[in-house]
Amino acid sequence: MFEFTIAGTQGAARAGTLALPHGAVPTPAFMPVGTYGAVRGLHPDEVERAGAQIILGNTYHLHLRPGEATIQTMGGIHRFSSWSRPMLTDSGGFQVFSLAGLRTIAEEGVEFTSHIDGSVRSLTPERSMDVQWALGADVAMAFDHVVPGQASHELAEDGMERTLRWLDRCRGRHAQLADAPPPVNGQPSTVNQTLWPIVQGGIHEDLRLRSLEGTLARGPWTGIAVGGLSVGEPKPVMYGVLDLLASRLPQDQPRYLMGVGFPEDLLEGIARGVDLFDCVAATRNGRHGSAWTSTGRLNIRKAAHRTDELPLDPLCDCATCSRFSRGYLRHLFVAGEMLGLRLVSLHNVRFLIRLGEEARRTILAGDFDRWSREWLRRYHGRERE
Amino acid sequence: MFEFTIAGTQGAARAGTLALPHGAVPTPAFMPVGTYGAVRGLHPDEVERAGAQIILGNTYHLHLRPGEATIQTMGGIHRFSSWSRPMLTDSGGFQVFSLAGLRTIAEEGVEFTSHIDGSVRSLTPERSMDVQWALGADVAMAFDHVVPGQASHELAEDGMERTLRWLDRCRGRHAQLADAPPPVNGQPSTVNQTLWPIVQGGIHEDLRLRSLEGTLARGPWTGIAVGGLSVGEPKPVMYGVLDLLASRLPQDQPRYLMGVGFPEDLLEGIARGVDLFDCVAATRNGRHGSAWTSTGRLNIRKAAHRTDELPLDPLCDCATCSRFSRGYLRHLFVAGEMLGLRLVSLHNVRFLIRLGEEARRTILAGDFDRWSREWLRRYHGRERE
Repeated sequence: MFEFTIAGTQGAARAGTLALPHGAVPTPAFMPVGTYGAVRGLHPDEVERAGAQIILGNTYHLHLRPGEATIQTMGGIHRFSSWSRPMLTDSGGFQVFSLAGLRTIAEEGVEFTSHIDGSVRSLTPERSMDVQWALGADVAMAFDHVVPGQASHELAEDGMERTLRWLDRCRGRHAQLADAPPPVNGQPSTVNQTLWPIVQGGIHEDLRLRSLEGTLARGPWTGIAVGGLSVGEPKPVMYGVLDLLASRLPQDQPRYLMGVGFPEDLLEGIARGVDLFDCVAATRNGRHGSAWTSTGRLNIRKAAHRTDELPLDPLCDCATCSRFSRGYLRHLFVAGEMLGLRLVSLHNVRFLIRLGEEARRTILAGDFDRWSREWLRRYHGRERE
Repeated sequence: MFEFTIAGTQGAARAGTLALPHGAVPTPAFMPVGTYGAVRGLHPDEVERAGAQIILGNTYHLHLRPGEATIQTMGGIHRFSSWSRPMLTDSGGFQVFSLAGLRTIAEEGVEFTSHIDGSVRSLTPERSMDVQWALGADVAMAFDHVVPGQASHELAEDGMERTLRWLDRCRGRHAQLADAPPPVNGQPSTVNQTLWPIVQGGIHEDLRLRSLEGTLARGPWTGIAVGGLSVGEPKPVMYGVLDLLASRLPQDQPRYLMGVGFPEDLLEGIARGVDLFDCVAATRNGRHGSAWTSTGRLNIRKAAHRTDELPLDPLCDCATCSRFSRGYLRHLFVAGEMLGLRLVSLHNVRFLIRLGEEARRTILAGDFDRWSREWLRRYHGRERE
């Protein structure tokens, strides 16, 4: 269990399969974000039919609503949200560090004010492990200290070193839970979960290398994440960090680039050896009527689409594009009908999942470089928004 | 085409089949309301899988957004909204008469202020026919003058008589359109549409009888609607008007009780010979977390449902009840996740459609009276909200 098998490579790009308790995940793969145990606006059947092999749940949000105790009582996050395939939960770190002014960081952990009811709560490495264990996803993430994309060397070093110290505590608590799982509702626990560490260090090469070294020294792990990217730094800088890490990360473990991204980021990340991605942009943009297409972004609210018979993207195989016209989708957005948000979100989710599928196919065919170059040229060639 | 065949009766209750251009509708039947060419929050596939044989579109809303010209250009309401089964459009009358203070009534028609952009527009019997023809549903409704449920005899008489005069104009214009359909996008029209009149008269028996008489005198029709009920009058008064009309309405035509209703109204209406119903309550209540169940209403937001493993209604066969727990649905509502609105709306829609299906089955088995009595006893016995 938790094994990662490489099926083929082209340069740094890899096609593999990650075995998790709830199923096997072919990579590269995009993970839709199910903040509250549901991918926003979508039915789990729709997410499954869009080809999602794994989704992500947000520990911070689920801890606040409905609370991990409720989810544990209801049989864990899979059963509660009726999602039978693999899941990964983040640690809550990114969210609490984003609560600028509402949180206090100490060596013990982070004290923060709930954005729901104003109550004061705290998240520590141990507490994050406890919450994620109660949620019961296949993969839990270590509780890390995230700094902004333009953070100074000093600030990034402080966050990186704390992340390593917290990793020891996460590993210790997670091992306790895995070795002697506490019973649930008086029954033996059925949780089977692995823990992945997160490499930090901001945009500073020396810190990224020290973070990687310290992380590997604390292993072995079943997967490694790269965090603290796509948080405000220029894209070339993000690609530079990935280039730096690509040859140094263990080849036989999946690499997860957290919070990324947009279509072009997926291709650039895959070219640099990334296996897993997650991002809320697919559903967030979808709710605002912004669709990705093979020839760039499309704003469905524009008057130009009023009587447009074409689907969002004539080259797309999603359930939205195979049935609905731009004209109808525009009407739904203009009239404020919920169905519009849903249909464009679904398209965007399928768009990124398909990108992962096509990358995998072309890597296995030894054709990824050519395909991704052409894909990016077409995508950037005609920006429609 | 447009024929109604009775398959069986029990007392005044009837089970029949209505043949429409886009398919046959078994009755009694509840028509979900697709205000803007979409049943709010639901995908046409979901509506179809919930068993809907016919849905209703709102002429007033579709006229304002996206406008009938857009829908006509896009191939008509069925093609535009990707709904292949029968559709009926209302006349816009009910909506413009609801715009108190924003409309002026004259013999010619109604001048009103758009609730969208404040523009001044008018709807006349002829204009309503033109708009509904452009939309292209299977059934168009006559443009009527609706008065409030407690309207005086004088006011109700005025509205009833105007409705009859307007019916002449509707019939005239609809016949012109049907006899020589204007081409669409340079192609011959494919619209095949019938017109149904509406019996008005408020809560006054003499007016209802005169309205019925005047309506029938202007026939023959392929169906007749009863309007101006469930608009503020007490329920026993509505049932009294239905009792009055039941034996006097032609037996061989479908009867449509407009804007009704709640589960108990469906059963009471069916017992009085009604064949078709429509109401926004199913989706409106669903969006507020109020679900109909076989033992009364249930408010899913209540804390009591926090860890409730049961479905909304253990006796329901809908896609929501067969998969999701009350605990999860409550969580979705509390967290403000769109999926919750969708799932409870879908349940409520299926709930009313199933009620029609079961009424039909029991009418054909000669068991409707007993079944509906028991159904109502169980439903009212334990009001949970």
